[in-house]
Amino acid sequence: MNNLTMSTDLYQINMMYAYHKKNLDGRRAVFDVFFRKPPGGNGYAIFAGLEQVLDYIENIRFTEEDIAYLRSVYSYEDTFLEKLRNFRFTGNIAAMKEGTVVFPGEPLLRVEAPIGEAQLIETTMLTIINHQTLIATKAARIVEAAKGDTVLEFGLRRAQGAEAGYYGARAAYIGGVHATSNIIAGRDFGIPVRGTHAHSFVQLFEHELDAFTAYSEAFPDETVLLVDTYDTLEMGIPHAIKIGLAMREKGKKLLGIRLDSGDLAYLSKEARRMLDEAGLTDVAIVASSDLDERLIQDLKSQEAKINIWGVGTNLITSYDCPALGGVYKLAAVEKNGEWEPRLKISENPTKITNPGYKKVIRFYDRATDKPLADLIALAKEEIPQDEITIFHPLFPHKRKTLRNYRTESLLYPVIERGRRLYDPPALEEIRAYVRKQLARFSPEIRRLVNPHEYHVDLSQRLWDLKQTLIHQERG
Amino acid sequence: MNNLTMSTDLYQINMMYAYHKKNLDGRRAVFDVFFRKPPGGNGYAIFAGLEQVLDYIENIRFTEEDIAYLRSVYSYEDTFLEKLRNFRFTGNIAAMKEGTVVFPGEPLLRVEAPIGEAQLIETTMLTIINHQTLIATKAARIVEAAKGDTVLEFGLRRAQGAEAGYYGARAAYIGGVHATSNIIAGRDFGIPVRGTHAHSFVQLFEHELDAFTAYSEAFPDETVLLVDTYDTLEMGIPHAIKIGLAMREKGKKLLGIRLDSGDLAYLSKEARRMLDEAGLTDVAIVASSDLDERLIQDLKSQEAKINIWGVGTNLITSYDCPALGGVYKLAAVEKNGEWEPRLKISENPTKITNPGYKKVIRFYDRATDKPLADLIALAKEEIPQDEITIFHPLFPHKRKTLRNYRTESLLYPVIERGRRLYDPPALEEIRAYVRKQLARFSPEIRRLVNPHEYHVDLSQRLWDLKQTLIHQERG
Repeated sequence: MNNLTMSTDLYQINMMYAYHKKNLDGRRAVFDVFFRKPPGGNGYAIFAGLEQVLDYIENIRFTEEDIAYLRSVYSYEDTFLEKLRNFRFTGNIAAMKEGTVVFPGEPLLRVEAPIGEAQLIETTMLTIINHQTLIATKAARIVEAAKGDTVLEFGLRRAQGAEAGYYGARAAYIGGVHATSNIIAGRDFGIPVRGTHAHSFVQLFEHELDAFTAYSEAFPDETVLLVDTYDTLEMGIPHAIKIGLAMREKGKKLLGIRLDSGDLAYLSKEARRMLDEAGLTDVAIVASSDLDERLIQDLKSQEAKINIWGVGTNLITSYDCPALGGVYKLAAVEKNGEWEPRLKISENPTKITNPGYKKVIRFYDRATDKPLADLIALAKEEIPQDEITIFHPLFPHKRKTLRNYRTESLLYPVIERGRRLYDPPALEEIRAYVRKQLARFSPEIRRLVNPHEYHVDLSQRLWDLKQTLIHQERG
Repeated sequence: MNNLTMSTDLYQINMMYAYHKKNLDGRRAVFDVFFRKPPGGNGYAIFAGLEQVLDYIENIRFTEEDIAYLRSVYSYEDTFLEKLRNFRFTGNIAAMKEGTVVFPGEPLLRVEAPIGEAQLIETTMLTIINHQTLIATKAARIVEAAKGDTVLEFGLRRAQGAEAGYYGARAAYIGGVHATSNIIAGRDFGIPVRGTHAHSFVQLFEHELDAFTAYSEAFPDETVLLVDTYDTLEMGIPHAIKIGLAMREKGKKLLGIRLDSGDLAYLSKEARRMLDEAGLTDVAIVASSDLDERLIQDLKSQEAKINIWGVGTNLITSYDCPALGGVYKLAAVEKNGEWEPRLKISENPTKITNPGYKKVIRFYDRATDKPLADLIALAKEEIPQDEITIFHPLFPHKRKTLRNYRTESLLYPVIERGRRLYDPPALEEIRAYVRKQLARFSPEIRRLVNPHEYHVDLSQRLWDLKQTLIHQERG
């Protein structure tokens, strides 16, 4: 899918039409993209998908076919269809850098545009950001569990379509995996690719050893053998050892064996022992088979002798939590040249939005460089550079006074008047940025289960504004 | 993504290369696509994705860019890269009709082709079939729970990327939903599209009533109003009633109101009462808000007054089970002009594959037209037309003798010598085929929780062959 213009909900077009009819579609508005809960019980998320969002925004075009189709959907006035035909995004977008470690409630991306334009792009942006942020975060969890071991993304056949596998591989790489099996992702994103062979390869030959020989001859420098086609301990590993010894005689080296079924703790320990006894101490053990971060953690705690983890379904679909609930909420509307803040009330206090044209500031301890807290503030506020007291957004008695910090403003302009300002960083750079940030956060925040809650607070002024608006709405 | 040739795992290319090096890549082989368990505890699955699979197969082409990339991945021989450059799929494919109600273990699709070709297409076909079959099945569950009410697919923003939303909308329509919010899916697949407005639309106006008025003026024949922006019972519904009465005065009709938060059972009953008291008995109540088949069933059992169900995240991701584990297994290899059956042994008896070149037969009761059982048999077997005794694939003492039946062979040739034989049916036809089949199956098989297990058995000859091969492998 190259042109995503129509990859949106009909209600966006319908709202644009109603605005058009009222001559309101040019009124400027501010929307924030944010999520309320990181996926899968994690303590944070990894913001991903920005590059695709910007590609999408720059290329929004309704084709004649689109216009003809919309004409068949509803009797929109010609003047409106003419507007769509000439539609270009002309607004401003600020966003966090791709790969930023992000937290609930804070705007990851802020759109300021005529309301008709701002409305159209909601669905498409959310689709991209929700998906890629989800998979990048899942990957970060898996990489955390693997504690420095190599992790391979193997999930394409279980992805929700080819494109989910494609951008999923990209997001997984951002989140920290080391390589993918997905060739098209390798080709287009420069992600290292890896692959061995399947059971069918072994089955095609009369004997397992013939299959192993054929593979090692074709890939003398990159042989990894799948050893569980018939019987892992009785056949597969002994055959792999024969190959490993034969390769050594030719000055080559068997890189690894792969376990894809059975009890991976037991089999890997037996495999390690057998390989070591044969003198093949440097042959790696690759494991795959419904792995996720919990199983990896468990296998490691049982001292499984696994060096490389191939993770498929659970990574590429974020199986235990296959959607991130990112939302797009109106925060302000232009009125007489000023931004009039808007807020969405809800029975559920955590769902009341933060009004106004906002920014996000991260505070770092000057001594340790550790992030201390994030602050959501109004864009025009000045942030004191010596001392600040911040509030919990729901429980204002939860206060924290920060001192001796440096600050970073997390939202950067990426599109101005519809033009891209931003040269997308190389994928390697985004991935390295993730690693660097995660290393700074305390391990308590990176914990896989029940992580410590990182502070994302509101400034005094934003808090006051929010309370005022809540009382106005309720009154 | 238009050309899916490279949307595959590197190991497919590596196996092709090893076959090429051994001059084995032309050897013909048979592979089956099947799954071991329907998704989400369902009793069946709805086979979907065939049209995209055939498009993919017909269009497999390695571009010069692909070849150059592969050269950078590994030092494949030029003769091999030349083969890829000229690669066309030349084999035969038989498949079930798209929309067939399918069960564990039975081949949904059978590939017979030179091993190199058969291997290349594994990943891409599985990606497509796993995804679309998953979503079609989830949709069928949701539609089952809605018991004839209209169901709308609303999930694009939470789909795993735009393409997952696109083919997901198509699969959901096959599975029985009535319309989608996704315009591009509407445009390309002819699915009816629906859409109302968001909370932001209401927020943009000074007063909710102004927003409702603007919307009803833009869509005088299709107004559905979202009533929970500020206060559903105190504001939203009273305002919608005002609009409904005003529209009636102009000879128009308010189609519906939409509830998107709060307790849907309580709010829908109150809404119904208020609308009815105002004489607006024909205004429909649309509900959305994290719906799935279980919640719909529960709300209906509590007599919620909901007419139309908008289902998002849970449908488009199949949230409780976001991947179908469809696999692709070698079943036979050509040897001296004969098919030599192959079997994959596993510690887990349910994972031992069914060997040989096979077919799938569905038996229907002649009196009631109800499906009685499916039989997996060798392709060359004759199926008795008067009486047959079939066996459970794992527990052969579980036998069943069928009489007075008619049979249907479920695998149809769709590609012969690389050429498509099959004119894809219209989407409406596929959807109607699903409805017609499901109505025939007994409700016990359609039950959402703990459904009755439909019989998928092996023929005596296939059973004997399997046992012989198991003993050979084990010996």
